[in-house]
Amino acid sequence: MPELRKDPVSGRWVIISVERGKRPTDFVSPLQKRRAGGFCPFCPGNEHTTPNEILSFRQPNTPANGPGWSLRVVPNKFPALQIHGDLNKRGVGVFDMINGIGAHEVIIETPEHLHSLSTLPLKAVEDVLWAYYFRLTDLKKDVRLKYVLIFKNEGEVAGASLEHTHSQLIALPIVPQRVREEMDNSKKYYDSKERCLICDVINQELDSSKRVVLENAHYVAIAPFASRDPFETWVLPKKHESSFAPIDKSFSSLADILQKVLKQLDKVLDTPPYNFMLHTSPFKEEQNEYYHWHIEILPRLTKRAGFEWGSGFYINPTLPEEAAKFMREAKI
Amino acid sequence: MPELRKDPVSGRWVIISVERGKRPTDFVSPLQKRRAGGFCPFCPGNEHTTPNEILSFRQPNTPANGPGWSLRVVPNKFPALQIHGDLNKRGVGVFDMINGIGAHEVIIETPEHLHSLSTLPLKAVEDVLWAYYFRLTDLKKDVRLKYVLIFKNEGEVAGASLEHTHSQLIALPIVPQRVREEMDNSKKYYDSKERCLICDVINQELDSSKRVVLENAHYVAIAPFASRDPFETWVLPKKHESSFAPIDKSFSSLADILQKVLKQLDKVLDTPPYNFMLHTSPFKEEQNEYYHWHIEILPRLTKRAGFEWGSGFYINPTLPEEAAKFMREAKI
Repeated sequence: MPELRKDPVSGRWVIISVERGKRPTDFVSPLQKRRAGGFCPFCPGNEHTTPNEILSFRQPNTPANGPGWSLRVVPNKFPALQIHGDLNKRGVGVFDMINGIGAHEVIIETPEHLHSLSTLPLKAVEDVLWAYYFRLTDLKKDVRLKYVLIFKNEGEVAGASLEHTHSQLIALPIVPQRVREEMDNSKKYYDSKERCLICDVINQELDSSKRVVLENAHYVAIAPFASRDPFETWVLPKKHESSFAPIDKSFSSLADILQKVLKQLDKVLDTPPYNFMLHTSPFKEEQNEYYHWHIEILPRLTKRAGFEWGSGFYINPTLPEEAAKFMREAKI
Repeated sequence: MPELRKDPVSGRWVIISVERGKRPTDFVSPLQKRRAGGFCPFCPGNEHTTPNEILSFRQPNTPANGPGWSLRVVPNKFPALQIHGDLNKRGVGVFDMINGIGAHEVIIETPEHLHSLSTLPLKAVEDVLWAYYFRLTDLKKDVRLKYVLIFKNEGEVAGASLEHTHSQLIALPIVPQRVREEMDNSKKYYDSKERCLICDVINQELDSSKRVVLENAHYVAIAPFASRDPFETWVLPKKHESSFAPIDKSFSSLADILQKVLKQLDKVLDTPPYNFMLHTSPFKEEQNEYYHWHIEILPRLTKRAGFEWGSGFYINPTLPEEAAKFMREAKI
């Protein structure tokens, strides 16, 4: 019997269609093998082909926009939003609009073309998390901005147009609808229980352990109860944290669990394409008791079509409990 | 300057990124050319390879599940939901679940393998709409069901796994989140204005006409103000109708506009893959003053990735006003 499950955080229902049950080997995922060769604007020596860097981690005494870096953040060359101008909120009849003010940046995670987040040295993954944090902290000063969505498209199927490993951020003058839904549901839960919804989810998951993928001192990775996609995995701080930030001034524990989960996915699903996104509290409500930041990782193994677009419902052919088991047993 | 636009019906914000502006010829869309040859379970003579038909339009005195039909509705061979059983709504801690009760059916729109909705005789398109209506009317009798989503995936990119032209329906024991959002926004608007939100949208669009693609006696096709995708097109009844139904006992006017829009898309975008979905009022609130049924057609020209999944925001590189103009000028 298929099962409908509700994700308590987003309010989204998912059809877990066990009759269509799939094991990892049933997913033909185009291997995300990187190839050297061809021109890459993110490789060292080509710094002049990107817009000027906003942030970089580099060897002492190397000038900006030249080689010598281990990580660069640059504006997207084809930005969806622009940073200069005013919001000019306005309406025409029933319609509302705002100027497209915001930021669209690229985090180039390493100079080495053939690496990915799962193969980089752990220190480099930590640096990527620091770059996220520094950019969030900087963009928060802009009073026009309400939210920064940090995300990663890994592999062409997942929307990456350049294969050199990178993340992106889009800063918005509006809190996005999906984040707003999560905030609202969490707030409603808090109002009734005086507890954080995601803290309760984590406690329940750690207690039953069947959907726990991995844990370390500060973080846990779970296959969400109402996973939209096979092998969807969330990484969350175990203790209540409303906004993305280091723990004890360090990202080493987060880098550790994130990279291990990505290694497990690579192992179980043969280097699948995936998207991940960081969900954190909006700028004006960064410190709160009800929302709990986390990273959502979605391997792109199934096609989304008219049903998903039309309904916001998802059909998932793999039980999250089974996905978690495969992940736990992966030898990485 | 890019523009943020809000869709008043769903509450969804969209980035109209004019700097990335694209004309129809910039979209490389895999031509949806149908090929004869190979086994097709939807072709006449192969009726025994599908589950038994639920509805068919066929020549007099031809037996069910054999040739002689012009349209068939059959259960999906790999259904996401099943019709037998009880809902057994239950919770485990913070999680809610329901048995996967519902229906998953396929509407085979014609016996002719090489046709599509845009090339079929108009009468056949009318019959497809009648089939939708008959199935909705029948499924509504099942008190366990709350909503039926009718949708079409045209082309492999849009999720069609068989090329023989067909639509699908999924009947659900839950009103889907996206439909619920549209209902809630429409209801809120009605509570404040005593008018249907979509009626107001239609009046404003007909008044300015710059986003009107096409109209006939009873229906209008528009490029929505906050289109998520290039060439997104909605077909709506001009007068208030809360639920999908014939007008004057006929679907000829709807078949006419729907087919013309699909022909325009084929012409402008060289037979693109697309999804469409029918949004209508849920079963328990079918007749109401606030919601207005419509069909949403989404050509699949751009990739959706981490940003869209993480935010519910969309980036659209084509102005809806320009898309509407290209559509109007298409010689079909």
